Amino acid sequence: MSNSDPTEGLLPCVALARLVDHHCHGLIGTDLDRPAFEALLTEADAVSPLGTSLFDSLIGLAVRRWCAPVLDLPPLAEPDDYLARRAELGAVEVNRRFLRTTGTDTYLVDEGFRAAELTSPGELGTLAGARTERIVRLETVAEDLARAGVSAAGFAEEFRTELEKRAAGAVGCKSIAAYRVGLDLAGERPAEDEVRAAAGDWLATGTPRLANPVLHRFLIWAGIDLRLPVQFHVGYGDSDVDLHRCDPLLLTDLLRATAPTGVPILLLHNYPYHRHAGYLAQVFPHVFFDLSLCVHNVGFRADAVIAEAVELAPFGKFLFATDAFGLAEFYHLGTLLFRRGLSRFLSTGIDAGELSTTDAARITALVTAANARRAYTLD
Amino acid sequence: MSNSDPTEGLLPCVALARLVDHHCHGLIGTDLDRPAFEALLTEADAVSPLGTSLFDSLIGLAVRRWCAPVLDLPPLAEPDDYLARRAELGAVEVNRRFLRTTGTDTYLVDEGFRAAELTSPGELGTLAGARTERIVRLETVAEDLARAGVSAAGFAEEFRTELEKRAAGAVGCKSIAAYRVGLDLAGERPAEDEVRAAAGDWLATGTPRLANPVLHRFLIWAGIDLRLPVQFHVGYGDSDVDLHRCDPLLLTDLLRATAPTGVPILLLHNYPYHRHAGYLAQVFPHVFFDLSLCVHNVGFRADAVIAEAVELAPFGKFLFATDAFGLAEFYHLGTLLFRRGLSRFLSTGIDAGELSTTDAARITALVTAANARRAYTLD
Amino acid sequence: MSNSDPTEGLLPCVALARLVDHHCHGLIGTDLDRPAFEALLTEADAVSPLGTSLFDSLIGLAVRRWCAPVLDLPPLAEPDDYLARRAELGAVEVNRRFLRTTGTDTYLVDEGFRAAELTSPGELGTLAGARTERIVRLETVAEDLARAGVSAAGFAEEFRTELEKRAAGAVGCKSIAAYRVGLDLAGERPAEDEVRAAAGDWLATGTPRLANPVLHRFLIWAGIDLRLPVQFHVGYGDSDVDLHRCDPLLLTDLLRATAPTGVPILLLHNYPYHRHAGYLAQVFPHVFFDLSLCVHNVGFRADAVIAEAVELAPFGKFLFATDAFGLAEFYHLGTLLFRRGLSRFLSTGIDAGELSTTDAARITALVTAANARRAYTLD
Repeated sequence: MSNSDPTEGLLPCVALARLVDHHCHGLIGTDLDRPAFEALLTEADAVSPLGTSLFDSLIGLAVRRWCAPVLDLPPLAEPDDYLARRAELGAVEVNRRFLRTTGTDTYLVDEGFRAAELTSPGELGTLAGARTERIVRLETVAEDLARAGVSAAGFAEEFRTELEKRAAGAVGCKSIAAYRVGLDLAGERPAEDEVRAAAGDWLATGTPRLANPVLHRFLIWAGIDLRLPVQFHVGYGDSDVDLHRCDPLLLTDLLRATAPTGVPILLLHNYPYHRHAGYLAQVFPHVFFDLSLCVHNVGFRADAVIAEAVELAPFGKFLFATDAFGLAEFYHLGTLLFRRGLSRFLSTGIDAGELSTTDAARITALVTAANARRAYTLD
Repeated sequence: MSNSDPTEGLLPCVALARLVDHHCHGLIGTDLDRPAFEALLTEADAVSPLGTSLFDSLIGLAVRRWCAPVLDLPPLAEPDDYLARRAELGAVEVNRRFLRTTGTDTYLVDEGFRAAELTSPGELGTLAGARTERIVRLETVAEDLARAGVSAAGFAEEFRTELEKRAAGAVGCKSIAAYRVGLDLAGERPAEDEVRAAAGDWLATGTPRLANPVLHRFLIWAGIDLRLPVQFHVGYGDSDVDLHRCDPLLLTDLLRATAPTGVPILLLHNYPYHRHAGYLAQVFPHVFFDLSLCVHNVGFRADAVIAEAVELAPFGKFLFATDAFGLAEFYHLGTLLFRRGLSRFLSTGIDAGELSTTDAARITALVTAANARRAYTLD
Repeated sequence: MSNSDPTEGLLPCVALARLVDHHCHGLIGTDLDRPAFEALLTEADAVSPLGTSLFDSLIGLAVRRWCAPVLDLPPLAEPDDYLARRAELGAVEVNRRFLRTTGTDTYLVDEGFRAAELTSPGELGTLAGARTERIVRLETVAEDLARAGVSAAGFAEEFRTELEKRAAGAVGCKSIAAYRVGLDLAGERPAEDEVRAAAGDWLATGTPRLANPVLHRFLIWAGIDLRLPVQFHVGYGDSDVDLHRCDPLLLTDLLRATAPTGVPILLLHNYPYHRHAGYLAQVFPHVFFDLSLCVHNVGFRADAVIAEAVELAPFGKFLFATDAFGLAEFYHLGTLLFRRGLSRFLSTGIDAGELSTTDAARITALVTAANARRAYTLD
């Protein structure tokens, strides 16, 4: 049916662009019942009985509208019909179908979160028929050392060695300081004795979970020393986050301190602070940003959010990503809603005479792939 | 005249929906001259001679556009003509006319602010021909005890007793901590000795005005213990507010601490932090929110603000309200601008194939009444 | 060519309005190569090799679209062609052409930043064929005293004397506290001994650069004592700024303390906090605000930002300005994008019956000139 072609009416340069998805996760390989499926539609821990169904939200509508046709159902199929068809096809086939719709050439996969439940980067690449590259989660490396019994005195050196080992073949690293202590981090590289003292405090807690501003900074600088582009979780995330501590502007000191290194910093998600991220991408030479997670969450409002994001940011600093996690639907939604939003933004400008189709093609090439290739030196 | 029908062109499900107005106030029952009327159009203490007339603002235009026809004047009648006609009809008739336009079945009335100047919940119900329910303002109960000479040692117990008494027959309570100390409140329930010490500090000030973070928290937890849904003033309000201390994200600790109780928390107004509130409504099971006051203040921009509010929030967590105060015009404007904004949001989605008319009807039913009925257990 | 008339389709009242540009700077009088030109398109220190060209941004597109025709090129001329033509005409002719497009009667020129590189207010007035008035930068006056060897004990008195002297014939003053210490300033006027102690601290640093909250407050109150309207840098600026310390809401205490004086406070730029500024303009009688810099930076998104800015603010408190600096293109872009955005906002309202053309004309007169004339008592 004609209204299930998500690229209908889009600028050809956007519809046909091959993508680099610079921030994403593995998929759940097993079948899901309705509560499990709905729980993945929200960043809450679970669906609230006080709030009715997650299908009554923009992300829920987007699943019914745009994912149902990929499973041979009419657009806006009812939730139960959707889940029945999903079960009938089986998770493997469902994942394969959605991944094959995306037009993505290269996936940079964050392998550090709930890895045991999800497909590995290699499995994802096979399913998608695409290249995958790894992003090393800094805190995971540190926490593995804690589990292995590292001493406070030995931590700094062992971390550097271990990170170098794990980063071999990886294209970047990621900090989740936002989840643990917020983004209000001092800029300067912590001294070795500060790191030792902080490691002592941390290891004395008896749990490997790292939440110490000095250590998060140490990890970030260790990544920079290896010239690994550093991703930061920023903004919208699950209810573990104190969102007001995740404003990317809180990173200003650290961005100022790291600018001279020339190592790219990539601010992920950013909503509702995406205008702040756009500002940082303009004024700091090494800062890039995306909307990722936000795009599929806000469904048909993605157009509006994308337009806000690029008000100040040079197009050479804004990146496509899905931040898809668990559900293959998010790969499909994240790419199609991004294509639609970008295309409408550019078409609006073309129709008003504010840019040419040649300009639109060049901007599209930057945002969909070239910026990521340049930031991560993928070629 | 045809262009004075505010429901023209709206989705029938929205135009005809019977409303629960879960946050509103009484009306001024006396006639108003132009300075008094204009002063009620702004959250400032008075109209500034530096700023010309409040009629030159979006709320002022909305009054002329949408309220004039209810008083038998053409749309966009001049301010002086409007006020002359208002005086001619008299406050009682004016209030009656505006209240009868709203299509509201049930009003939840905040009775704690400037009660002596305003119609009581009962009077409002009679004027409107509708059910009214009471919301108890927590700080008013406490301050009445201070006026009656409560001791620091006796405060906690007497407050609990008095709140239970006053809450009999009420459907919820409200905290105005935002106005007094801001929303950056610790989450955990304060210990009895902390409450006693804080009450001592407060009573020693010699004024009943409560502004003490420990006591605001105590009041809130007392409401939760009675399983009363708790409303919070959030965001935009008068110049007493330090607006940067009223970001709803500052409530994160308290929301995390109260989530296990299952007692609903309702975030009021929220502008300009409405996207933040939508996020909280997604990630916390017991959080609901509205735009209320903001809707009539931003006039024909209400569409844009409503669309932003629901980007992340499940529709099961977003509530209609007017926060009408003093002027009956606000009941009229708050309802019609909300209906228009909601209808346009849904129509945009329907026209783009993003949802069906059945979906729109279900979402409308949630937002206009069912969410409030469920949160306050009104049935 | 028809599509280069930037006023095509605009409301006549907006297209023809004579403007007061209440916040702007001088121009660079020499020719610029591409790196130098691009560097002026960004608030970063320089163009980042990681981010490609600044022409690939909304401001870059706006230059090509709207400035090229003024230099006899087709809309969207290529950057190199644009710069070649600019060089061919020479800076003097280029500056003259752009300034003559604006329809601005009066410029209020901030003369305190990089004055040696830029045209003076008098030169600007001659180029533009318009009246110019001076805005005195408070920190520049103080820093000149430091360079001249003022003592801590003598600072307060000498500053007052010097400010009065320099403010003779000026129409306002400006604080750049935002750049130095952020806007979280206490409200009350600092005592003389506090000023003396703070001046001692400052002078002991051995550099004239002032960055001391007590002294910034002292400077501001000295301006108010002379009944000089006080401009504040707020929000978006270069990478020297800690943007999260530049939220105008942080000025709440100071606004509350200064309100009784009746001296206008003018909040400049404000993006991305422009809704916050609109709120302050509503609730404080003496607060005005603009978008200035932001308008030409966001190119064809200016419409959206202007609409957000006036949601809460009375139209009597919102001002036009360009904040043009260095490139005469910004005078052209700032005025035409503002006219287009304002016109579209008003036209949207007229088309929907929300205001009349008479209303639009009155609002336009306020925003484009009358508010500035009233705030600065220019007549």
